[in-house]
Amino acid sequence: MLPDRAPTAEDIRAARERIAPYAHVTPILSSRTLDERTGRRVLLKCENLQRVGAFKFRGACNAVLSLSEEEARRGVVTHSSGNHAQALALAARLRGIPARIVMPRTAPAVKVAAVKGYGAEITFCEPTLEARTAAADAIIAATGAALVHPYDDPRVIAGQATCALEILESGEKPDVLLCPVGGGGLTSGTALSARYFGGGVRVVAAEPAGADDAFRSFTIRSYVPQTGPKTIADGLLTSLGKLTFPIILETVSEIVTVSEQSIVEAMRLLWERCKLVVEPSGAVPLAALLEGKGAPEGSTVALILSGGNVDLDRLPWSAA
Amino acid sequence: MLPDRAPTAEDIRAARERIAPYAHVTPILSSRTLDERTGRRVLLKCENLQRVGAFKFRGACNAVLSLSEEEARRGVVTHSSGNHAQALALAARLRGIPARIVMPRTAPAVKVAAVKGYGAEITFCEPTLEARTAAADAIIAATGAALVHPYDDPRVIAGQATCALEILESGEKPDVLLCPVGGGGLTSGTALSARYFGGGVRVVAAEPAGADDAFRSFTIRSYVPQTGPKTIADGLLTSLGKLTFPIILETVSEIVTVSEQSIVEAMRLLWERCKLVVEPSGAVPLAALLEGKGAPEGSTVALILSGGNVDLDRLPWSAA
Repeated sequence: MLPDRAPTAEDIRAARERIAPYAHVTPILSSRTLDERTGRRVLLKCENLQRVGAFKFRGACNAVLSLSEEEARRGVVTHSSGNHAQALALAARLRGIPARIVMPRTAPAVKVAAVKGYGAEITFCEPTLEARTAAADAIIAATGAALVHPYDDPRVIAGQATCALEILESGEKPDVLLCPVGGGGLTSGTALSARYFGGGVRVVAAEPAGADDAFRSFTIRSYVPQTGPKTIADGLLTSLGKLTFPIILETVSEIVTVSEQSIVEAMRLLWERCKLVVEPSGAVPLAALLEGKGAPEGSTVALILSGGNVDLDRLPWSAA
Repeated sequence: MLPDRAPTAEDIRAARERIAPYAHVTPILSSRTLDERTGRRVLLKCENLQRVGAFKFRGACNAVLSLSEEEARRGVVTHSSGNHAQALALAARLRGIPARIVMPRTAPAVKVAAVKGYGAEITFCEPTLEARTAAADAIIAATGAALVHPYDDPRVIAGQATCALEILESGEKPDVLLCPVGGGGLTSGTALSARYFGGGVRVVAAEPAGADDAFRSFTIRSYVPQTGPKTIADGLLTSLGKLTFPIILETVSEIVTVSEQSIVEAMRLLWERCKLVVEPSGAVPLAALLEGKGAPEGSTVALILSGGNVDLDRLPWSAA
């Protein structure tokens, strides 16, 4: 059974209406090269072309727009050094409310600049989960700001679910939706949309073997936290959430793991043959297909290319 | 007055029908970042997402599909080391006829491999225009193959014109269509579609200052051949054609030139902020906007991102 706090079909439809004036309906592209290479019919849902370059804008935008006027006045806060930070900063700017972002002192300058560029106020902390949480709690105590967690929040999950809803209403008929899994916001949202609107479409999540907490948790059906992840897919380092995990257990068909080599190969294929700038995390679903996993041969599979935020001066193949 | 051999509105509509089963209707994307950066409303017509990664597939496909059964049996030939070679090879494969491509011995291995990958037969020659023409003539004499020139062919121009037709029928209302100019196939096709279907839309072509034969020819209204071009935009090295030049003189509003620095800056912006892999030639229209040229401030301008074929191991910013 789904947890009580899991978004409903109505929540997801409402999220879509709420974010429609701000978020892109991203294109769904096909590639005969990928079809031939993988032996599947491949659809690419281009969330790298979403605002701030990642699906994260959907959830952040839905959360910010769901706040009451009174809550909104006090602003929003989160702790993140990744795409969620930029997404929340932009969503807050669009509503005209303050955003406060807790980032580790070690965050790359380019990410700090991006968040500042969207007008958010940054609080630096030590690079530990405890320090981040404490810093966010202090801001909440001082300002009354609303916490928007990167994934373990029903408003965020409902927002991420709008991506799969767009696939399912596009006229395409995928057999499988294949997405990357990190904290589980995209995965749980995708699987909820599949259950509500999908008419039997299967949902599979792909994860780096070097950060396989979701795979292990799913396999033993008991929560295993992420410790010491080692992967180039920097968007997938986190543990599953207390809300996302039970939704995933209930709705996802399978979780598969992929090697680092496959991630880099998939990323390069997407750049070279599909002309799409996709970050390592966004290439993880294609990596699964390259390893023969995630969808049966001959099936139609929609890959969610989750984001495209990459440092162009540090590409994984330029090291070689 | 338009030259007699210039494609008509009917030719362009027929080209669209002919190539529809094979070519992508490429997406038109917007970017608030580019809007803010340029002070214009920018639409991106993504020909980098076209098959073979460039608009060239449109013209090659229309030319191949326009051949009679008897002509088709004898195959097609061209001399090119660029996107046209791949485009013609794929178009011929799709019709199931032979393609013979004359390439200079100096062509990069990656381009040779791409053309071979589409099943074409390659004839190598010395890297001069004379040698290329002689080799193509010899093939025509021996096989009766039909020459499909990269740009100076009405069937090719009509094919390239379908790109602008898609923009004009998309529901968007651009004030200006801004495209790169090399041999003039895309430019003349774009301007013909603008004249026939555009209701007053202006067409501007952008060219590297280091390969400015079109700019000079247009300015003095007399043909100036390209000599010793120096630009990173390797798709724009050729001279205008005998057919494309008079069409351009009659239909294009303005030709502007851009610096190499602007081209690299525009290319990086497209990769970094729009998540699109665009080759230097395809970034030339945005380079014009960055220099304040090509379209008035506040106007809506559709940029044709002509292609995305780049060697990922030799990016212009990785040299730094």
